[in-house]
Amino acid sequence: MQSDLKQPTVLAIDTSGPVAGCAVLKDGKIVHQVAMNHGLTHSETIMPAVDAALEGAGLGCGDVDVFAAVAGPGSFTGVRIGVCAAKGLAHAVGKHCVAVHALEALAMNFYGFDGLCCPILDARRGQVYCAAFDMAGGMPRRALADAALPLGDFMAILPGDRRLVFVGDGVPVHAKTVRDILGDRAMIAPPNLRDLRADAACLLAAARPEAWVPAAQLQPIYLRAPQAVRERERRGKF
Amino acid sequence: MQSDLKQPTVLAIDTSGPVAGCAVLKDGKIVHQVAMNHGLTHSETIMPAVDAALEGAGLGCGDVDVFAAVAGPGSFTGVRIGVCAAKGLAHAVGKHCVAVHALEALAMNFYGFDGLCCPILDARRGQVYCAAFDMAGGMPRRALADAALPLGDFMAILPGDRRLVFVGDGVPVHAKTVRDILGDRAMIAPPNLRDLRADAACLLAAARPEAWVPAAQLQPIYLRAPQAVRERERRGKF
Repeated sequence: MQSDLKQPTVLAIDTSGPVAGCAVLKDGKIVHQVAMNHGLTHSETIMPAVDAALEGAGLGCGDVDVFAAVAGPGSFTGVRIGVCAAKGLAHAVGKHCVAVHALEALAMNFYGFDGLCCPILDARRGQVYCAAFDMAGGMPRRALADAALPLGDFMAILPGDRRLVFVGDGVPVHAKTVRDILGDRAMIAPPNLRDLRADAACLLAAARPEAWVPAAQLQPIYLRAPQAVRERERRGKF
Repeated sequence: MQSDLKQPTVLAIDTSGPVAGCAVLKDGKIVHQVAMNHGLTHSETIMPAVDAALEGAGLGCGDVDVFAAVAGPGSFTGVRIGVCAAKGLAHAVGKHCVAVHALEALAMNFYGFDGLCCPILDARRGQVYCAAFDMAGGMPRRALADAALPLGDFMAILPGDRRLVFVGDGVPVHAKTVRDILGDRAMIAPPNLRDLRADAACLLAAARPEAWVPAAQLQPIYLRAPQAVRERERRGKF
């Protein structure tokens, strides 16, 4: 992080995947962070977690400069819960929102890794949401565009001359396949660095004030149309 | 992490530094993690956090296989709070405890980093608690023994041919000095990877069942005698 940036106060919410998380960045420090992988409904767990984060940090909603939501790709319902929570909070106090990219936030777990960080999320239908980021300079630099692909197709387009680290909720399911095909070149993130953490979302939000928008303009990031839309389109076509 | 290890259920507590944290590892996943850097007294914040972690994970104390405490080096009072909390919980349900090393747990934030991870903790009196771990193989491998040293003395003994990453609560104070002296060779951990996280302590606890002990045998890890002991010794000598 550049030390000459003004340090905004950020509250980040992530309900885009199996983990529900919330974090507060204040004066350049993560003052609160919680990550819950309880198998409970994010819509029930996230607002008490936000309350606890603000209270612990000694902040009211009005003290927050920007409300960040991990806006996808991820679970359609989960993404909407996080985006709507951030919108509601920001709207209530007239502050900004910012959409944080789930795959980029995951890559932040391997800041400075000498190679590519490859987040893979379970996208169902035999696919993973995937991307690759060059981490050698510290912050993630995009190396491959977001895609929803079969895991094999994703591994086939990864460069052969770089170290790779796989992160995300696709890891527990696919780690063996990744090791079998890519061998020692691919590292599997350990459990403490495997999941999206809301503190990473705080940092991406703080680093990009140009992406802050009024609450009404916050939008989810979808790589595929939701199932309901796909089915409607199919019915229309056939 | 080796996949053939039996997966114990671990509750880890860290109150050894400015952050109070708690995490639960279950079935190889971090199911709950909280990190609070609120400037409040750890003795007040940690037990409600433990309660919330167990409740969120759907566990009672009796379901936990081992209670881990980050046992130092760190704040003398903080270390005692965490060690005593773990001891009390384990004793109540007849389970084991394990002491996790603070500097090694910090290094877990840079699992797989192609170089040395150098944790530095503010030890007051112009010193840092410091060590270095080779991370290239994944888990931390000890490269330099624990010490309490002036920062300059520590930097002078670091090998000149490796990438370095500095983590820990000494970073905000000393980052500029580190950059001035070591230049591009030294990376400074970003805020999301800077502080000790209790989930890392869970993994170290799970990886070393040979270090589990009955509750009564759990001991703090001190690099220096506490100030009260130093003063008593000085009065005795002069």
